[in-house]
Amino acid sequence: MNQLSHQARQCIEECWRCHSICLSMAMTHCLETGGEHVRPQHFRLMMDCVAVCATTADLLAHKSQFHRQMCALGVEVCTACANDCMTLEGMEECIAACFACAEACREMA
Amino acid sequence: MNQLSHQARQCIEECWRCHSICLSMAMTHCLETGGEHVRPQHFRLMMDCVAVCATTADLLAHKSQFHRQMCALGVEVCTACANDCMTLEGMEECIAACFACAEACREMA
Amino acid sequence: MNQLSHQARQCIEECWRCHSICLSMAMTHCLETGGEHVRPQHFRLMMDCVAVCATTADLLAHKSQFHRQMCALGVEVCTACANDCMTLEGMEECIAACFACAEACREMA
Amino acid sequence: MNQLSHQARQCIEECWRCHSICLSMAMTHCLETGGEHVRPQHFRLMMDCVAVCATTADLLAHKSQFHRQMCALGVEVCTACANDCMTLEGMEECIAACFACAEACREMA
Repeated sequence: MNQLSHQARQCIEECWRCHSICLSMAMTHCLETGGEHVRPQHFRLMMDCVAVCATTADLLAHKSQFHRQMCALGVEVCTACANDCMTLEGMEECIAACFACAEACREMA
Repeated sequence: MNQLSHQARQCIEECWRCHSICLSMAMTHCLETGGEHVRPQHFRLMMDCVAVCATTADLLAHKSQFHRQMCALGVEVCTACANDCMTLEGMEECIAACFACAEACREMA
Repeated sequence: MNQLSHQARQCIEECWRCHSICLSMAMTHCLETGGEHVRPQHFRLMMDCVAVCATTADLLAHKSQFHRQMCALGVEVCTACANDCMTLEGMEECIAACFACAEACREMA
Repeated sequence: MNQLSHQARQCIEECWRCHSICLSMAMTHCLETGGEHVRPQHFRLMMDCVAVCATTADLLAHKSQFHRQMCALGVEVCTACANDCMTLEGMEECIAACFACAEACREMA
């Protein structure tokens, strides 16, 4: 990946980190806790974040001319997901990953 | 999928159609023809289209609050891909799928 | 996609159909119904099916030398998902899509 | 991701690392170098690896009952990709990522 800037590589890493943490927390902690943790709006935000982070990382890896728009959407989705997770217990790892990813995407947008 | 509107379901179908046609043409026709068909800018556009269509379809399936922004990006990427394919031979199926998908995304954006 | 066999194209279509129906039913019907519909084991099977169908379709589109192994896993995952959905109400569309996809994958495996 | 074993988390990380390096090298170094680097068989192996690593990581994040089979396929695809890359110049980063990912998948399979 030495053809990508340091900043792009770091953003790709944050995107995959956020993708994996959101996905694994949704599939383990949220499903096993139930209640508010499987509220449709919350769970969809988690899965939106999973999907958008993956494509943001991939467009950065492509050196795509569309990476800015995708990163801008990444900022929005990760921030919304983090904010929603803050209303629930035990989501600290997810919140931290979402905010870190939002910050990395903001620098690339 | 009966909880989704007819329009959303149709857009999901066009997205997957466009995704599959772009991916399979890139991996067969473009790679086997070589020359202009593997020009980096062209090939990246094809793969951008593959990635963006997949996530557009998934956000529609989620009934995501972010589907409009993703569909708007879908319109842009599919149109750019179709226009670039028009400069190359044998890409008719791809061009048609990209324009159909751009149209379906425009209605959802 | 005219470089792919009729059978491969049909299997790609069934995979995306199954992917989209499982994803949209999980994100709407299952989350909104709650109870047994968000049992961790059930929900994970739905999301396994979503992931495996996507990659099965993509390897077929690549004309990948690994498509047989991926199709064989597709048969297994779709069948397990369909069987689990049969214990729940309102999953008919999902069951039909999973069995149709399992059948198409079996022919390609 | 504290509900996943240390080994599973490490394998997820190797999968995303391999996914991103293969994708970015295909989209930059391979397309820009041309010649043998865009040989259909080589390029398809790179993209097979990109797709299979992503789904292997996701099934691990799901704590999927199918993760062993997917990891076994990951071993095979990453090894084939690494071996093919060894015949080409400038692919060292990709080769290292593929072998590391194959090793991590082997431990989970």
